[in-house]
Amino acid sequence: MKIMAFWSIFLWFFLFSYSSSIAKVTPRFPSSIVRPELLSLSTENELYETKYFTQTLDHFNFHPQSYQTFQQRYLINSTYWGGAEMKAPIFVYTGNEGDIEWFAQNTGFMFETAPHFKAFLVFIEHRFYGKSIPFGGDKEVAYSNSSTLGYLSSTQALADYATLIIDLKKNLTANDSPVVVFGGSYGGMLAAWFRLKYPHVTIGALASSSPILNFEDITSPYSFNNIITQDFRVSFYTIKHIFLSFFPVKLKDIRDELQDKSESENCYKVIKGSWEKIEDTAKQSGGLELLRKSFRICDNYISVDYLENWLGTAYIYTAMTDYPTPSNFLNPLPAFPVEKMCKAIDDPSTGNDTFAKLYGAANIYYNYTGTTTCFNLLDDSDPHGLDEWTWQACTEMILPTGGNNEESIFPLSQWNYSNRASYCNRLFGIQPRPNWATTEFGGHDIHRVLKRFGSNIIFFNGLRDPWSGGGVLKSISKSIVAIVAKKGAHHVDLRFSSKEDPEWLRDVRKREVQIITKWLSQYYHDLAHLS
Amino acid sequence: MKIMAFWSIFLWFFLFSYSSSIAKVTPRFPSSIVRPELLSLSTENELYETKYFTQTLDHFNFHPQSYQTFQQRYLINSTYWGGAEMKAPIFVYTGNEGDIEWFAQNTGFMFETAPHFKAFLVFIEHRFYGKSIPFGGDKEVAYSNSSTLGYLSSTQALADYATLIIDLKKNLTANDSPVVVFGGSYGGMLAAWFRLKYPHVTIGALASSSPILNFEDITSPYSFNNIITQDFRVSFYTIKHIFLSFFPVKLKDIRDELQDKSESENCYKVIKGSWEKIEDTAKQSGGLELLRKSFRICDNYISVDYLENWLGTAYIYTAMTDYPTPSNFLNPLPAFPVEKMCKAIDDPSTGNDTFAKLYGAANIYYNYTGTTTCFNLLDDSDPHGLDEWTWQACTEMILPTGGNNEESIFPLSQWNYSNRASYCNRLFGIQPRPNWATTEFGGHDIHRVLKRFGSNIIFFNGLRDPWSGGGVLKSISKSIVAIVAKKGAHHVDLRFSSKEDPEWLRDVRKREVQIITKWLSQYYHDLAHLS
Repeated sequence: MKIMAFWSIFLWFFLFSYSSSIAKVTPRFPSSIVRPELLSLSTENELYETKYFTQTLDHFNFHPQSYQTFQQRYLINSTYWGGAEMKAPIFVYTGNEGDIEWFAQNTGFMFETAPHFKAFLVFIEHRFYGKSIPFGGDKEVAYSNSSTLGYLSSTQALADYATLIIDLKKNLTANDSPVVVFGGSYGGMLAAWFRLKYPHVTIGALASSSPILNFEDITSPYSFNNIITQDFRVSFYTIKHIFLSFFPVKLKDIRDELQDKSESENCYKVIKGSWEKIEDTAKQSGGLELLRKSFRICDNYISVDYLENWLGTAYIYTAMTDYPTPSNFLNPLPAFPVEKMCKAIDDPSTGNDTFAKLYGAANIYYNYTGTTTCFNLLDDSDPHGLDEWTWQACTEMILPTGGNNEESIFPLSQWNYSNRASYCNRLFGIQPRPNWATTEFGGHDIHRVLKRFGSNIIFFNGLRDPWSGGGVLKSISKSIVAIVAKKGAHHVDLRFSSKEDPEWLRDVRKREVQIITKWLSQYYHDLAHLS
Repeated sequence: MKIMAFWSIFLWFFLFSYSSSIAKVTPRFPSSIVRPELLSLSTENELYETKYFTQTLDHFNFHPQSYQTFQQRYLINSTYWGGAEMKAPIFVYTGNEGDIEWFAQNTGFMFETAPHFKAFLVFIEHRFYGKSIPFGGDKEVAYSNSSTLGYLSSTQALADYATLIIDLKKNLTANDSPVVVFGGSYGGMLAAWFRLKYPHVTIGALASSSPILNFEDITSPYSFNNIITQDFRVSFYTIKHIFLSFFPVKLKDIRDELQDKSESENCYKVIKGSWEKIEDTAKQSGGLELLRKSFRICDNYISVDYLENWLGTAYIYTAMTDYPTPSNFLNPLPAFPVEKMCKAIDDPSTGNDTFAKLYGAANIYYNYTGTTTCFNLLDDSDPHGLDEWTWQACTEMILPTGGNNEESIFPLSQWNYSNRASYCNRLFGIQPRPNWATTEFGGHDIHRVLKRFGSNIIFFNGLRDPWSGGGVLKSISKSIVAIVAKKGAHHVDLRFSSKEDPEWLRDVRKREVQIITKWLSQYYHDLAHLS
C-alpha cells in the first residue's frame, strides 16, 4: 500500500515531458539544460535574431487588468525567405513550456527545410516561460500567486500566437504569405489546436508527439508507463545479446523483426524488482547509507521517495529521448540510450548486485559525459516551489498518466485525480478544471469529429515515446494525417538531421516535406483562383 | 459639416440590430418589447421550461475571480424528443443580445421542425442578458463598470455554450445525440463561430442573417445604409402605384421583375431631403415647436438630434424587419412595412407637406396599432447609461456601419473609428480592440480559408436586410452553403411560419430542413462506421 500511495502522489511530477520532474531532481529547467557549449549547433547569431512583441495580457475578457501588456520574445530567421512579393511561406514554431531558444535549437527540421521552401522562420515563446514574463518581466511577481499565474493558459497562448503572427505579416507586408505552424510535445498540441482554432492564420500544422488525446478517459492512464515498460522489455541490447550467436550475419536487417517479436525479460525484471529492494534496504539499519553509497549520492540527506523519483526520472526521460543518434536534448545521451541502460543492467561493468546495475543505468542518463562524481537528489532548492508547468498541470493540463498496472516496470499505482486536485489546492489554492481541455479542444471521438471537419494537420508519433499513447496514430482524413514511426521517440522528426539517421527517420521527414509542399501548392492555387 | 458630424457620432447607436438604438429612443430593449399578450404564440408553459446552469465566470484564465459562478438561464422543450436511446438530435439556439425568451418566441423554425426531427430544443441565454447575470444576478453590480462588464464577451459566451451543452448531454445520457446550433443576427454569428470553434460539440450550424464579414475593411461601411436606401428606392408600393394601371393582370407574377428592374425615386427623395428641411426648420423661430407638433412629440423637450435619431431608427428597423407577413418582432408591423411607409409618403393620408408625410411613415413603425397619441423621444431615462450591447460594441464588436455616401437616404457621413474609440473611452474608460474579432474568428478571405476547412454551416441572408452586406452570400464549399433570398429580411427564415408566407420563404425553409437532414444522416452513418 505504501508503494501505491507513494507513486500515485509523486508520479505526476513526471506528468509532462521534461519540465516538473526535472525541476525537482536536477538543476531547474530549462536554463541549466540549454548548454550552447555542448551543442554542435550554431550560436544564436547564426541561427536567429531575437525580437519582442507587445502582447495583451488577457485576450478573452475586457477587465481593466486584461489590457496590461508584456514583452513576448520571438526569434526570427529571414536568411532563406523568398520575400513578400514571392508570397514565400512563413514557418512558425508554437513555443511550449520552456525557453524558446532551447526549442529553436532542437528544431533543426525548420532550419533544414527553410532553404527548400524559401521560408521565413519564427519561433514564438510561450507566455510565462523564458523571457516572456508578464507583470513587468518580473518572475518573482509573475509566479507569485494565482492572481498573476492565472493568465498562464493554453488558450491565451494560442491567441498570443494569432495576434503576433497577424501583426508580423502586416509589418512584413506579407499578407499573402502562407503560415505553417510546427510544434513538438505540448508545442505540438498547440500547433494542432492552432490549426483547428485559427485556420485563418495558418494553412497547416505539423504536430509532433502531441498527446492531444491524453485527457479524461480517452487514453488509458496506464498507457504512458506501459510504453516505457515495453521500451525496456524489448530493448535491442538484450535481444542482440541473446540472439547474436544465432544471427551473426545481416543483423541489421532482422533487427526490426526481433524487436517486434522478441522480448527480453532481464532488464525489465531487474528494474521492476528494484523498488521493493530499495524500500526493504532503507528499512534496515544502515540501509539508507548503503543506498547513498551505491548510487553515489553526494549529500547526506537521502530518502526513498527522492531516490525512487530520481531513478524513475532517468527511465522515463531516457525512454522519451530514445533517439537513434547521440543527442543532447535533456541530457547528453548516446544513440539508443534505453539499449545502453539495459546493457548496463544485463551486462554490468559496475558490479553484480542490483544497486550497482541500477547505478550503471542511471549513469547513462545523468552522467554520460562521465564528469559527475556524485549526484544531488535535492538540487532544486524548493521542490514545492511555484513552477510554470506545475501551474498548467494544476489548472487545465490534467493528463491522466502515471498509473501502473501489473505489467508496469514501476510499482503498482492508480491514476488518482483527487490527489492531483488536493495537491494543487495546497500549492496554489485553486481547483483544477479537468474537463476544460476537452471542452475547448475536443478529443473524444476525434476520428468522427474531424473526418469531415478541418484539414492539413500532420500528427507524427514515435511509438517508443511514452506520449505516443495519447497521440493520433491513425489518419483521420486525406489531409489530417498520422505518421507513425515504430522506432521513433519524442518528436525525433523535428530534430536536426545527422548522417547517422536511419532510413525510417529520413523517410518520415521526406514525407512531411512532401505533405507541406502539397499544402503550399494548394494554397497558391487557391490564391490564384479564389481571390 | 454639422450633419456629417452629427451622424457620424450618433449613427453608431444603430450599430447592431435592435439593441442600442432602441434603448435610446424607445422603452428599453427587450423586456418592453416582449409582450406575450400581443403574440399569437403559446404562453411560456406550452413552449418551454426554464432551467438554470451554474456557469464559470471566466473560462480562459485561472485568476481566482475566474472561478466565480453565475446562474445561466436556458429554456428547454423535450416534447418532441426521440430520446437518448434513439440518439435523437438536440437543437440549440445560441442566444444573442437579449432576453432568451424573446429569441425563443421568435424562432418558430425550431419549434416547427422539432417534431419532424424528433429534436430536443434548448435556448441558451447569453451571459449578461435577460436573467443570466453574473455577480449574484445583480444587474446594478454586473453593469456597474469595466471590472464586472469585462466578462461580457463573445468568446466567453461560446465557451458557456460548449460547457452547458456538454453537461446537458451528460445529464440526458445522450452522448450520441448530435447537436445542431441555430442563431439569428449576432446569435447567428455565434452559431457559425460555434461550429467553427467547437466542431466536437455541434455537427452543424444554421447561421441566419449573421454579418460575420462586417469587421475591419472586409465590408464597406456604406453597405448597411446603402441597403436601406435601396429598400426604400425600390419599395413595391411605389412600383405598384405607378404600374398598376398598366399591369392590372398577373401582377403577382411580375412583381419580382418589377422589383429588380424598376425604381421609384419619390419615397427615397422625400426622406433623403427631409434631414436638411428638419434642420432648417429647427433654426427658425418657432421651428422646434412646429416639429414637435408635426411629429406629435408629447414632451416639451425636442432636439434635432433626437428627432432625426428617432426617424432614422424607424427607417432602419423597418428595413430590417421588412417581413412578408405581419410581425411583432420589434414593434407590431404590417406585412411589407417599407412598402407601407412609402405609401404613407407617396400617397399621404396625413397631409401633403414633408413633415406630415414623414409623420405618417414613422407612425407605421412606432404606432401601427394606432394606440399611441403622442411620442416620447427621450423615453430612456439615461441615454448614456451603461448598456450591455453598448459594452460589446465598445470592446470587440466593432462593426463599421453607418457610413453614408452620396447615394444614401441618410445625410452624408463617414464611418469614423476614432469617434467610437473616444466615445467608449468616455463611457467605460476602455479602449476597443477593433482587430480582435478577425484575429479570433477570421473573416478576411473567408472563401479561401474555409473552402478546405470546416463544414456544415448554412448562411442565410435576406437581401432587404441591411446586415446582409456583411453576410456570406456565396457558398464556400459543398457543405458551407449560402442561401440568399432577394426579398428576405433579418432572419426571416427562423420565424414562425404563416399561411401567408410566400413561396420563396417556404422554399428557403424546405432547403434548410433538407440540409440539416443530410448532416444528421451523415452523422448517423459515421457513428455506425467510425465508432
